[in-house]
Amino acid sequence: MKKPKFIGDYVKLSGELQHLPSRVRIFDTTLRDGEQTPGVSLTTEQKVMIARQLDKLGVDTIEAGMPIVSPGEKQAVEKIAKTGLNAEICALARCVKEDIDAALDCDVDAIHVFIATSDIHLKHKLKLTREQALEQAVRFVEYAKKHGVVVEFSAEDATRSDVEYLKKVYRATVEAGADRVNVPDTVGVITPRGMYHLVRQIKEVIDVPVSVHCHNDLGLAVANSLAGVEAGAEQVHVTVNGLGERAGNAALEEVVMGLRIFYGLKPKVRTELLVETSDLVERLTGVTVSPNKAIVGDNAFAHESGIHVHGVLEFPGTYEPLSPELVGHHRRVVLGKHAGARSVRSQLEEMGIRPTSKQLKLITQKVKELGDKGKKVTDADLRAIAEHVIGALPPEQKTVELKEITVTTGSTITPTASVRLSIKGEERVGSATGVGPVDAAIGAIRNVMKEISGLRLKEYHLDAITGGSDALAEVTVKLEDERGNLYIAKGVREDVVIASVEAMINGINRYFARRK
Amino acid sequence: MKKPKFIGDYVKLSGELQHLPSRVRIFDTTLRDGEQTPGVSLTTEQKVMIARQLDKLGVDTIEAGMPIVSPGEKQAVEKIAKTGLNAEICALARCVKEDIDAALDCDVDAIHVFIATSDIHLKHKLKLTREQALEQAVRFVEYAKKHGVVVEFSAEDATRSDVEYLKKVYRATVEAGADRVNVPDTVGVITPRGMYHLVRQIKEVIDVPVSVHCHNDLGLAVANSLAGVEAGAEQVHVTVNGLGERAGNAALEEVVMGLRIFYGLKPKVRTELLVETSDLVERLTGVTVSPNKAIVGDNAFAHESGIHVHGVLEFPGTYEPLSPELVGHHRRVVLGKHAGARSVRSQLEEMGIRPTSKQLKLITQKVKELGDKGKKVTDADLRAIAEHVIGALPPEQKTVELKEITVTTGSTITPTASVRLSIKGEERVGSATGVGPVDAAIGAIRNVMKEISGLRLKEYHLDAITGGSDALAEVTVKLEDERGNLYIAKGVREDVVIASVEAMINGINRYFARRK
Repeated sequence: MKKPKFIGDYVKLSGELQHLPSRVRIFDTTLRDGEQTPGVSLTTEQKVMIARQLDKLGVDTIEAGMPIVSPGEKQAVEKIAKTGLNAEICALARCVKEDIDAALDCDVDAIHVFIATSDIHLKHKLKLTREQALEQAVRFVEYAKKHGVVVEFSAEDATRSDVEYLKKVYRATVEAGADRVNVPDTVGVITPRGMYHLVRQIKEVIDVPVSVHCHNDLGLAVANSLAGVEAGAEQVHVTVNGLGERAGNAALEEVVMGLRIFYGLKPKVRTELLVETSDLVERLTGVTVSPNKAIVGDNAFAHESGIHVHGVLEFPGTYEPLSPELVGHHRRVVLGKHAGARSVRSQLEEMGIRPTSKQLKLITQKVKELGDKGKKVTDADLRAIAEHVIGALPPEQKTVELKEITVTTGSTITPTASVRLSIKGEERVGSATGVGPVDAAIGAIRNVMKEISGLRLKEYHLDAITGGSDALAEVTVKLEDERGNLYIAKGVREDVVIASVEAMINGINRYFARRK
Repeated sequence: MKKPKFIGDYVKLSGELQHLPSRVRIFDTTLRDGEQTPGVSLTTEQKVMIARQLDKLGVDTIEAGMPIVSPGEKQAVEKIAKTGLNAEICALARCVKEDIDAALDCDVDAIHVFIATSDIHLKHKLKLTREQALEQAVRFVEYAKKHGVVVEFSAEDATRSDVEYLKKVYRATVEAGADRVNVPDTVGVITPRGMYHLVRQIKEVIDVPVSVHCHNDLGLAVANSLAGVEAGAEQVHVTVNGLGERAGNAALEEVVMGLRIFYGLKPKVRTELLVETSDLVERLTGVTVSPNKAIVGDNAFAHESGIHVHGVLEFPGTYEPLSPELVGHHRRVVLGKHAGARSVRSQLEEMGIRPTSKQLKLITQKVKELGDKGKKVTDADLRAIAEHVIGALPPEQKTVELKEITVTTGSTITPTASVRLSIKGEERVGSATGVGPVDAAIGAIRNVMKEISGLRLKEYHLDAITGGSDALAEVTVKLEDERGNLYIAKGVREDVVIASVEAMINGINRYFARRK
């Protein structure tokens, strides 16, 4: 087992890793527990898209849903089961005949049956005695097993259940035929130390694989999952982006990378697809991923402070625990008031600008001043500052310049735009209407420029905007010329219309620059 | 020490909590490490606002910044130090004379000096030998101490440093006068088990308080912080919302609640202000908090699935690890395809609608159908379904109706909007300018409606648009009233401006409907 040296030093000290399994299964429940996120509802088509992506990623089990919930849910599970994926397809069912029958109807590989075992759930939710719950668990594990599927049994709210009773339930369900048992921390109330001891005790009385399912109510879902593995758990339940009820479940991306980095355990997951998978799930569920989310957040490999950037530019390992490429991410250096001269120089060099060390010092100082005012420093800002300090810079070639644009829209009027462009010095004026202000503005540009009739707007993308109504809008356009060459350009403004126009003009200028 | 019973069972088993300190200090570094979040830059005024809030919350130390970074940063630290807060005000400094002098100039109570001790940092960043770094650490701890401030010493990248060398550095700096030492997991690469052993070793050689500072690169910042406390650490470095470089730091709200729930340790933090503090920091930094963020996320106490809602309505403890009021949050029940009859009934009752049990069954079924289509079920949807099933309902009043809106923007003109609204039949006309057309349109609505002055636009979210420039735009707004009630509303149009206005008007109507 290969372990990064610096970690191994501390972990080995403890002499407590002798229970690590040789392999850990990844049981993904994005489509079940993740989809229970309040406000999230996916169509069958979207569920199939996510299932395909999870399969490409390489998870061992896809929990596709709980068929008894609704006819649509059942249809989605059925469809995923029939898609011919490599992963084991699993459906969730309570210890109730109708639930298991609905799951069997979907022709899944595995059924995950559960019943609560904590006194608080037995008393307030199920109104059952411990004996009744035990009897029901055994009966329905046997019933499901009789139909030839893989059966995983969960004792809901295990971490708040009486340990002796819990062990009795797991023993009985394994005797009844359960192929795996799962230990859910349903309400997210255990610590890694607690989870370790709990899993150890369970492993002592049963011999089928043990799984853990951790919720993040106190921010410990990933740590508790890893502690379960330290205690010998052979499977972890996860969701992409840590989606799920309330504060969600253990995040797939964090668990997978943790297993790899801390214990050298490599689940058969293609880690380079983690960011792509996260993006897809974010887009389809509409649940925003914070920039500071571990592994997949926009800032996970971004550096601003001068000290950090200095370190990373010298040697990425100084401030990066793993290489961004390993998870399909990329490194990003952001300028601001913490900027040091090194990061400013590296950004300028990318623009083809080479300042003297005296100029560099002055530019860095001005970047910091802008940061002090609470401003984010964009490439355009940096260029403007450099121009001011150095004087004439290598000219940016612009064939087309936007002189003026005016756009009007409303509830009772047709969106209309007028534009005045300077094309190699020649001024042209034109207008257009459209289905909205952006569409009208882009139409107006096209109307006055016959030169770009062969240039197709292949894709228009406006990044999601979150914040106030005055947040920055970032537009990316992808243009394609007659010969199939692509021109990608961006515009960033507080005004979505002007950002779109800027992106379009930038793209057109790239096209002309290439044709020259 | 009082511990919740269900947790105690497992934790006590381990017999390893004998090192818990009797009290834990909360050292908040939102304004220093949190502000190093790429893209975040706060003005002096904003920093003072956050400092005041942290003081009201009751943290022990506020790390206000690193004065050497820029003149603006220095000014902010100075101003916070002079504000007369109860918390200890601290400034960060490298082991460099200029840094410490800049901190001393600000008249802070404490200086946090640091130097890296890992070979990877010494070699690639500092280009110092271990001996040189040790000598520098001692020299500058002494220098700072000589000026009468509290000195906290950090060995940067401690978790990747050679343990024997690290102990030597800590011993030497304590002998040189350091009042506290801090153990940073700078790159977020240790496990709770590792952190426990590391802190144990350090505590064996020094007798001043030990602090931990954990980064979240692998999702373990909170767990590692708590493990440090289990090993006897008397202080934890945290940031609000877990802000910070890359994946951020340990989240204040999660650490504080974890200490309380798992170990009965109550830092002197007024937990009922946690959500309010999170909101303020989210608004001022612009760094979005995911809905599934633990403790403070919008969904942290939201329930959708029928099973969960059923449990929570019977007895909140079934699916809530702590009471939402304890952290200044509130419970929320969301309808969707997982909805059960109980949650539908509870929502209908809030609208003053009382269906028979037969009607309830039919309504629930229709709610599930809508959920199956990938739809979020809004109050308006539920109302429409109920109306269809039950027949005439008490009439829903739309207080505000949009009669007309016109918006103009352009590259050389100020975005301007005019609006004509009908408010309970009374027509009003008004206008506003803004940074973009959406901002102007929303401003115009606010200008004519003094009734909504207490209603805050908490979040504006425009879903990413991909496709042509004529693709559909989907806008969601989240409004918050004086009492903290949230109103979420949507608008979907080809025109982003009109979609935004529609969402805003829908939200305002919900607000009025509730106030009735």
